[in-house]
Amino acid sequence: MTLLTTTDPRSGETRDTTIAETDDAAVDGIVRAAASAFEIFRSSDRAWRAGLLDALADALEAQRDDLVAIADRETGLGVPRLTGEVGRSAFQLRLFAEAVREGGYLEAAIDHAGETPIGPGPDIRRILVPIGPVGVFGSSNFPFAFSVAGGDVASALAAGNPVVIKAHGSHPETSAATFAALDRAARAHGAPDGTLGIVYGLDAGRALVSAPELRAVGFTGSLSGGRALLRLIEQRDDPIPFYGELSSLNPLIVTPDAAAARADAIAEGLFGSFTLGSGQFCTKPGFAFVPLGPAGDALVAGLVDRAEAAPAGVLLNERIAESFGQIRARLVEAGRARIAGGGADAAEPGFRATPTVLELDVADVTAEVAEEAFGPLVVVARYSDTEDIARALAALPDSLTATIHSQPTEEPLTQRLTRVVLPRVGRVVYNGYPTGVRVAWAQHHGGPWPATNTLHTSVGVTAIRRFLRPVAFQDAPSHVLPEELRDDYRGIPRRVDGVLVLAG
Amino acid sequence: MTLLTTTDPRSGETRDTTIAETDDAAVDGIVRAAASAFEIFRSSDRAWRAGLLDALADALEAQRDDLVAIADRETGLGVPRLTGEVGRSAFQLRLFAEAVREGGYLEAAIDHAGETPIGPGPDIRRILVPIGPVGVFGSSNFPFAFSVAGGDVASALAAGNPVVIKAHGSHPETSAATFAALDRAARAHGAPDGTLGIVYGLDAGRALVSAPELRAVGFTGSLSGGRALLRLIEQRDDPIPFYGELSSLNPLIVTPDAAAARADAIAEGLFGSFTLGSGQFCTKPGFAFVPLGPAGDALVAGLVDRAEAAPAGVLLNERIAESFGQIRARLVEAGRARIAGGGADAAEPGFRATPTVLELDVADVTAEVAEEAFGPLVVVARYSDTEDIARALAALPDSLTATIHSQPTEEPLTQRLTRVVLPRVGRVVYNGYPTGVRVAWAQHHGGPWPATNTLHTSVGVTAIRRFLRPVAFQDAPSHVLPEELRDDYRGIPRRVDGVLVLAG
Repeated sequence: MTLLTTTDPRSGETRDTTIAETDDAAVDGIVRAAASAFEIFRSSDRAWRAGLLDALADALEAQRDDLVAIADRETGLGVPRLTGEVGRSAFQLRLFAEAVREGGYLEAAIDHAGETPIGPGPDIRRILVPIGPVGVFGSSNFPFAFSVAGGDVASALAAGNPVVIKAHGSHPETSAATFAALDRAARAHGAPDGTLGIVYGLDAGRALVSAPELRAVGFTGSLSGGRALLRLIEQRDDPIPFYGELSSLNPLIVTPDAAAARADAIAEGLFGSFTLGSGQFCTKPGFAFVPLGPAGDALVAGLVDRAEAAPAGVLLNERIAESFGQIRARLVEAGRARIAGGGADAAEPGFRATPTVLELDVADVTAEVAEEAFGPLVVVARYSDTEDIARALAALPDSLTATIHSQPTEEPLTQRLTRVVLPRVGRVVYNGYPTGVRVAWAQHHGGPWPATNTLHTSVGVTAIRRFLRPVAFQDAPSHVLPEELRDDYRGIPRRVDGVLVLAG
Repeated sequence: MTLLTTTDPRSGETRDTTIAETDDAAVDGIVRAAASAFEIFRSSDRAWRAGLLDALADALEAQRDDLVAIADRETGLGVPRLTGEVGRSAFQLRLFAEAVREGGYLEAAIDHAGETPIGPGPDIRRILVPIGPVGVFGSSNFPFAFSVAGGDVASALAAGNPVVIKAHGSHPETSAATFAALDRAARAHGAPDGTLGIVYGLDAGRALVSAPELRAVGFTGSLSGGRALLRLIEQRDDPIPFYGELSSLNPLIVTPDAAAARADAIAEGLFGSFTLGSGQFCTKPGFAFVPLGPAGDALVAGLVDRAEAAPAGVLLNERIAESFGQIRARLVEAGRARIAGGGADAAEPGFRATPTVLELDVADVTAEVAEEAFGPLVVVARYSDTEDIARALAALPDSLTATIHSQPTEEPLTQRLTRVVLPRVGRVVYNGYPTGVRVAWAQHHGGPWPATNTLHTSVGVTAIRRFLRPVAFQDAPSHVLPEELRDDYRGIPRRVDGVLVLAG
């Protein structure tokens, strides 16, 4: 039995935990338990399942201070941020509970039997049903909101699926403590054995995605990690959906008028956004377009001054710190860039990086300077003609987000830039910053490859759809239909004979 | 320049066409034209696009008799069936036009800025947008409804995407004539150059799925063909969605009371369904469970008598005819099965098969007797205990459909069987037959692997969603928003601050 270690990123000190790596036989047992739980859980009552999600949210909040203390030791993200993240995770569970109660996510539709222009048609009724046990890979950078208590787990459960979590190796004790809290609450609510499971270790993660009973995988992590898991899935007898959120540069554009009007405010906001959580956000603005000229110079100077004054920030783990240093060196080399701020302060212990601003000419933007550096680094490309932005964007990989800072005086330019960025991203932010993803009905957190490998979102209510599949019933007697598809049911919105009908 | 040949399956005679295989350079040009068209088409007005779909439907019907005559020569499917298929294809285009006008498919959602339990939230607005050029592989067995004028093309266009079709090699002249009619109508309606494209030949198909500009693929065909294209997609720099409809056995269950009450009617219906179009339907019931005893014996006798009396049916092409013969032989060998009906009548020219009924004991159901035979063949498994059906189903691959014939006296059994088949299929049919897939809002044509590799449908209105992706706008000025996301717009159903609001 191999015990996992955990490392304090502030000191770099590593110690043993009491958590064992999960061996293949144990993974097999856990996934089988999930499959058994599914036989009960899949037909659980929606109100009961919403209550389960609320109970998980309550349990998380009840344990908040303990969980935050453990996570702070393992991630160095700090108590205020981690406290907020627990709150966000609880809010997310409750929002899915609300969606489950409302029932629109079921996409119930009824076409009664009848004559059609091409002959008589049978009665057809459609609804979404849960797909089966879901594997969720926790991320390093959100020990709560994208880990054991995160959106993938919440949405998979909301849909009616048991979940097996692969704990991130960077915060095993946080994962174990969070799992214990959720598992206890689920059992107290009456959830069947196997509704929640957790595995530890890289080999266990591989065994999980290869397990025959698994029906989908949610993953937030690196492009290389995602590619490796995709290859395992392709080797399955039955390829299953893999929802990966992988890599993102998140370009931010400052128009000439915006620079002229708000250079310092934008420098302040952009600096805060690219250094938030030591720059370890999938939505970190890693690439900015700033006009040449005095206003742009002032904006860049504002970034540089702040970078040079800032202390080194803690990075999550040694691998991220090493990778950040390497990619930073490659970007400096490739971009012939001017550089401000710098590497880690060697005097400090642990894993650290100081904020870095790289500056280059928009004409020098190539794929080589468009590598995502997971850490507090922004590449600033200076332009004189806004048409150059479109050309440069074509050299960048697609992203989760794009951000446009512009002025009301620039309507046509703002429209043109929107048109340019829209095919390349999943969210467009105006006069704000992409870090901070509101959990809401209308949210979309996704984007074209390599941002994700899916058309779906991993934040917001429609994330639930990833873990559902449609089924249609043809000429079914009422007694075999789910309640929501019976003629006399009125509790959810449905599309009846092509017409959307509200609940009531 | 290599010219394609076409073969009359009734005579087996092959002749040259005037249609050239599309070389790689030409494929590249066609896909680039589609990408250019997308720049215009993606922001086309919904009412205009609905009009385009209606115009395509009109064009199809205006050419119906010519198209049917060509298709009948190339497929041997017969004038009545092909005439109906053109009607179905036109109906499908018009249904998508209706959906585009209605606008619910956009899934518009607005969360206004405001306080939330976890702090102030920005304004977020979500809508679905077209993904870009779509490649569609036409199928052999539906020269209209799943080919050039089929559901994948209709739904991709409805979403706002240009389409490049890979014509099926089994009906090139039908494909060319259909394409000419649609392309002419699209141009007359004002669609940009490149909105519709077509390529011919296997190599052209490979080049199409590898083209950088392509954003998704729709495919209806064999499991091996689907796997081969999936491998090409995995090799792309950016893996794109592949919507494959691949292989399906479509089990049909006859309960004891149903056999007792309706043995001959079920024999008549099942025989008609598994031999429809010479059994070349993805929804053909290829596997039936029939009780032991006199009623079941009468049902099987009814199938056997019809099989022995039936003439040989025409198969679509030589490959299908050869494959059918080989799989039939394997099934007979593997299943230790009694056999009725038989191989092709050697006296007849062309590609033919006579209806075949294989009978075996439910205890002998293994993966080896669960191979899909694309042609007029049904395997009948005889059972004495309905519990044996569940065990046997576990040996069958998952399917597009399952069918249950039962009596009102058997409510608990019907519920139990529904529970057993539901996780394994996309549609459950009661006291009917799975061939014939109603085109409707509530339809779902899909199912777990190997039926499909996707959670989505390829028939019915929600097929459109495969070719859309969500985007979110954060704090966007009104002038950059799509009309449907502006506050004062009322033309489509939307979810506003979590509440579904109808148009009006």
